[in-house]
Amino acid sequence: RHLDIAAVNPYHAWQDRFDAQAIWQSGDLNRSLKNANYLVTETNAQTIGWDSRAQYPPYDGQLRLAAYAHAAAGAKMVAYWHWHSLHYGQETYWRGVLSHDLEPNRAYAEVARIGAELRKLGPELANLRKQNRVAILYSADSYHALQFMPVSDRVKYMTILGQMYGSLYRLNIEPDFVTPDSDWSAYKLLLVPPLYSAPDSALEKLARWIEQGGRALVSFKSGFANEHATVRHQMAPGPLRKAAGFRYHEFSNLASPVPLKTALAAQASASVWAEFLLLESAQALASYEHPFFGRFPAVTRNRHGQGTLTYLGTHVSNNLMDALLAAELKAAALDSPDQALPAAVRVRHGRNARGRQLHYYLNFSGESRTFTYPYAAAVDLLSGRPAARGAALSLGPWDLVILAEN
Amino acid sequence: RHLDIAAVNPYHAWQDRFDAQAIWQSGDLNRSLKNANYLVTETNAQTIGWDSRAQYPPYDGQLRLAAYAHAAAGAKMVAYWHWHSLHYGQETYWRGVLSHDLEPNRAYAEVARIGAELRKLGPELANLRKQNRVAILYSADSYHALQFMPVSDRVKYMTILGQMYGSLYRLNIEPDFVTPDSDWSAYKLLLVPPLYSAPDSALEKLARWIEQGGRALVSFKSGFANEHATVRHQMAPGPLRKAAGFRYHEFSNLASPVPLKTALAAQASASVWAEFLLLESAQALASYEHPFFGRFPAVTRNRHGQGTLTYLGTHVSNNLMDALLAAELKAAALDSPDQALPAAVRVRHGRNARGRQLHYYLNFSGESRTFTYPYAAAVDLLSGRPAARGAALSLGPWDLVILAEN
Amino acid sequence: RHLDIAAVNPYHAWQDRFDAQAIWQSGDLNRSLKNANYLVTETNAQTIGWDSRAQYPPYDGQLRLAAYAHAAAGAKMVAYWHWHSLHYGQETYWRGVLSHDLEPNRAYAEVARIGAELRKLGPELANLRKQNRVAILYSADSYHALQFMPVSDRVKYMTILGQMYGSLYRLNIEPDFVTPDSDWSAYKLLLVPPLYSAPDSALEKLARWIEQGGRALVSFKSGFANEHATVRHQMAPGPLRKAAGFRYHEFSNLASPVPLKTALAAQASASVWAEFLLLESAQALASYEHPFFGRFPAVTRNRHGQGTLTYLGTHVSNNLMDALLAAELKAAALDSPDQALPAAVRVRHGRNARGRQLHYYLNFSGESRTFTYPYAAAVDLLSGRPAARGAALSLGPWDLVILAEN
Repeated sequence: RHLDIAAVNPYHAWQDRFDAQAIWQSGDLNRSLKNANYLVTETNAQTIGWDSRAQYPPYDGQLRLAAYAHAAAGAKMVAYWHWHSLHYGQETYWRGVLSHDLEPNRAYAEVARIGAELRKLGPELANLRKQNRVAILYSADSYHALQFMPVSDRVKYMTILGQMYGSLYRLNIEPDFVTPDSDWSAYKLLLVPPLYSAPDSALEKLARWIEQGGRALVSFKSGFANEHATVRHQMAPGPLRKAAGFRYHEFSNLASPVPLKTALAAQASASVWAEFLLLESAQALASYEHPFFGRFPAVTRNRHGQGTLTYLGTHVSNNLMDALLAAELKAAALDSPDQALPAAVRVRHGRNARGRQLHYYLNFSGESRTFTYPYAAAVDLLSGRPAARGAALSLGPWDLVILAEN
Repeated sequence: RHLDIAAVNPYHAWQDRFDAQAIWQSGDLNRSLKNANYLVTETNAQTIGWDSRAQYPPYDGQLRLAAYAHAAAGAKMVAYWHWHSLHYGQETYWRGVLSHDLEPNRAYAEVARIGAELRKLGPELANLRKQNRVAILYSADSYHALQFMPVSDRVKYMTILGQMYGSLYRLNIEPDFVTPDSDWSAYKLLLVPPLYSAPDSALEKLARWIEQGGRALVSFKSGFANEHATVRHQMAPGPLRKAAGFRYHEFSNLASPVPLKTALAAQASASVWAEFLLLESAQALASYEHPFFGRFPAVTRNRHGQGTLTYLGTHVSNNLMDALLAAELKAAALDSPDQALPAAVRVRHGRNARGRQLHYYLNFSGESRTFTYPYAAAVDLLSGRPAARGAALSLGPWDLVILAEN
Repeated sequence: RHLDIAAVNPYHAWQDRFDAQAIWQSGDLNRSLKNANYLVTETNAQTIGWDSRAQYPPYDGQLRLAAYAHAAAGAKMVAYWHWHSLHYGQETYWRGVLSHDLEPNRAYAEVARIGAELRKLGPELANLRKQNRVAILYSADSYHALQFMPVSDRVKYMTILGQMYGSLYRLNIEPDFVTPDSDWSAYKLLLVPPLYSAPDSALEKLARWIEQGGRALVSFKSGFANEHATVRHQMAPGPLRKAAGFRYHEFSNLASPVPLKTALAAQASASVWAEFLLLESAQALASYEHPFFGRFPAVTRNRHGQGTLTYLGTHVSNNLMDALLAAELKAAALDSPDQALPAAVRVRHGRNARGRQLHYYLNFSGESRTFTYPYAAAVDLLSGRPAARGAALSLGPWDLVILAEN
């Protein structure tokens, strides 16, 4: 509430581990804070680290691709930490645009290119506006409560949120972030990492939002404890019971992964956690292949008023999370040709300050990639080349186009 | 000496890791403290743990099987920690019979069944008396001294004691526990984990007990240090030298397991520790297959007066420990049909307060098991069904019979 | 400067891990401190350790072989820690020549043999003089600076020095150790572990020594920081740039090993670190097989005046280090028949106080080894047997000959 302009210092991996997932997860969150464009006040120049054990400078083109990835998420500034590398102290190897020798180098040349392009294109790119229909419900209380009472050393609140975000990333869907208190009326699909610690009012709001037509994908452990992280005396999942369509008394860790039987994905599996769901009105979407756990459903879906609540009673494998989200998108009529892009090509959309619709297509790989452009005729702001609807476009290694509809 | 009634709070694993080994090791020790029946004042209800990283509720039948396993070892009470699950604090996930919702559940139903059975059968089961002929010599001084001067991070005083106990468990032999100071006259076979720190008098008592007809299986490191954990100036193994029939100056850790040549077991091996035994009157039972260590015996047996001392100069593999113990039982005429039971079926015996001989047969597996009943005609106290000598009996998953001889 | 007689307490591994590498690395360093013979004031008797987790007494012959290995490096005394094993306290298991029983044993018998031999041969063996032509440049400042700013948890200053020493050991080359301040005029080949922190004067001295005909093999990270561990403002590698024949702005850790293409060794590889070398006058000796790193050479050689500087821009595999050193030895005309000895047979040379040339041949294996003696006719001081040039000599397990030229 006291924040006027959101700014963030996101660092990420280079070389073979470089993609936009971390950049966009951070960017979507920061853009959502004030529902406005934001500043990147620090990010990777050459290498980072407090010693030399993990120095990974970018491959050619990665610095430029990263800068445009920030812009595609709504950043209106990208600044580097820092101008030149320090010669002494803790950040000696947190390297700047210039090396310790202070002379022009590969990084400087690439940053200079970015600067020259932005001087020209800035007015077309800045203040990009989004109209997203998918949101992730972030609960800081639940994050902290589960840090105190974890279900696993590996699977935590942020890894489950990250798993959901990763599925959206693979599906080329841009989400906003919301909180229990914010306005969810713009959204058709809500992804809910473990809403473990929340007041009755938040859970009732979620049930009501579903009743009025929303679709929610809700993680295990949601509804279990109140806003003081005290476990509810009510039958789990507390105020969500009617919307979820089940109750449960019991749960178990899974000592090793258990295969799941489901029509949604081959070779899906469950791990870490299993709630012993007793269906009341929900349907099972997946069940455990196990002599004991087999009697309980692993994933359920319940129609509640005009909407549905899909519930993860366990930690599902990534392929099942992808399949569940793809099904939700389709049911919510949010699917698009973006889901058919090559794995290395990621797309981001928005409307610029002049009202033009922009499509960023970015190639996160060291090889060229070709894709079919499915939107209205446009021009690539970087090269000036036109692109017709249905045109086959090629992207070089770590390169991009920014298509502005005519 | 100041203890009037022994009580213990033993917790153990559920699900696929559930068996009676930990329950009985704890029970045999506690029963031996006062040579009397004892109380289980806390044990697993649903799940245990200070967070949710290792929540493993019992499979159907395991709660009931555990309660009778305690009774079979001589417990005269089984109480759970605790009645209902707590809603806040460190033990939120140390779950009681009731879940946080405080309503009847699967665990409650099983505990209620146990209670109903015990109300009926209690007088037949309580105050079970044992007449064991095998004992484990426990030395608290040796435990502590070897914690200060360990031979391994993996193999310690308690793991060697546990290895011996595990062999007895697999052989269906019930031991008592004795101390250097207690009366050993009832026993024919004594298992001695490393008696590393002990006064001359304790070692002389052991030698004399053997001389008078006892059989002892003694671990490496026994006799090495006195009651102050000071290494003896005498040739090792100190006052045990004559009874053991060897001396040694030297020892070595084993950097990796070494195969053992022995008539007792195929594919036996040694690990962790090797004393360079120089035989005086003992015979070698096993020797190292190794260019250097091969000159020293690994396991020895020595006749001393009317008894024998079998010595482990190394940490033997479980299969050799099993074979050594089976041979000792046979030589001491302590073997019985109990050694022929299926691996999942464990048996415990005793005489109830009314003088009837009881035989508990418990099935620690999720599948039915069949076995032949070799004792006098009896009746199953739980079902009321009779069992003739030689009858083939079946046990359902995690189920049991309690046969009382007519 | 304040040291009058160098003395050292080197401990090493016994049994299958016993060889002379650690003994000689320590011995060569201590002999170099005052360029004089030194004392071994403590070394392994039976076993070492502050508990019993790593007790490894020597195999037969190893104690004697170790004593002569010390003498072959220039030790003029070998003393054991300690006479007899202690019965209490931290060093209870740091075992002396005598066991806790204080009686003659296997170690005592072998030490007595060594003593009897040395009483006879001492005057022929003591005060051995070396004339080495290879030196390792040790920089304590660089060791400390790289502890603060490591390139890896596995590869550190001392492991790189140890890798160089290991290659010399395998090639049967005896080095001295020098410091940035000492006199290098006696040497033809200098091995330089990362000279990371050094004043301009030291780097200029190295460049000048090369210019005047020296050959240097220099590790990555040399020249990067000054004597205060402050990174230089100059282009890397600072004052070494002209002698090295390249410059670089950038470097990267290697997330996994990268194959190297080089005429020197098949299946060579690079790991941990890669400097992006931009050649000015040097030639590439090895390059990365990698889509990005492939543009930079991995190992270079530059002629500078009368000498050459060979530079490791990466952490090379042991087989490439061996090949590089073998090539340097040949180029410096320092190769000899010593490089053709069996892997287990190691040789050390020197001139005794009476001016006779001695050749120690030691067999670090449990099997007999045969080799051809290539030097002038001599007599084995231990057995009195003569050895003609070209004779085939046999060494028993863990045995040796000391050939004194006639």
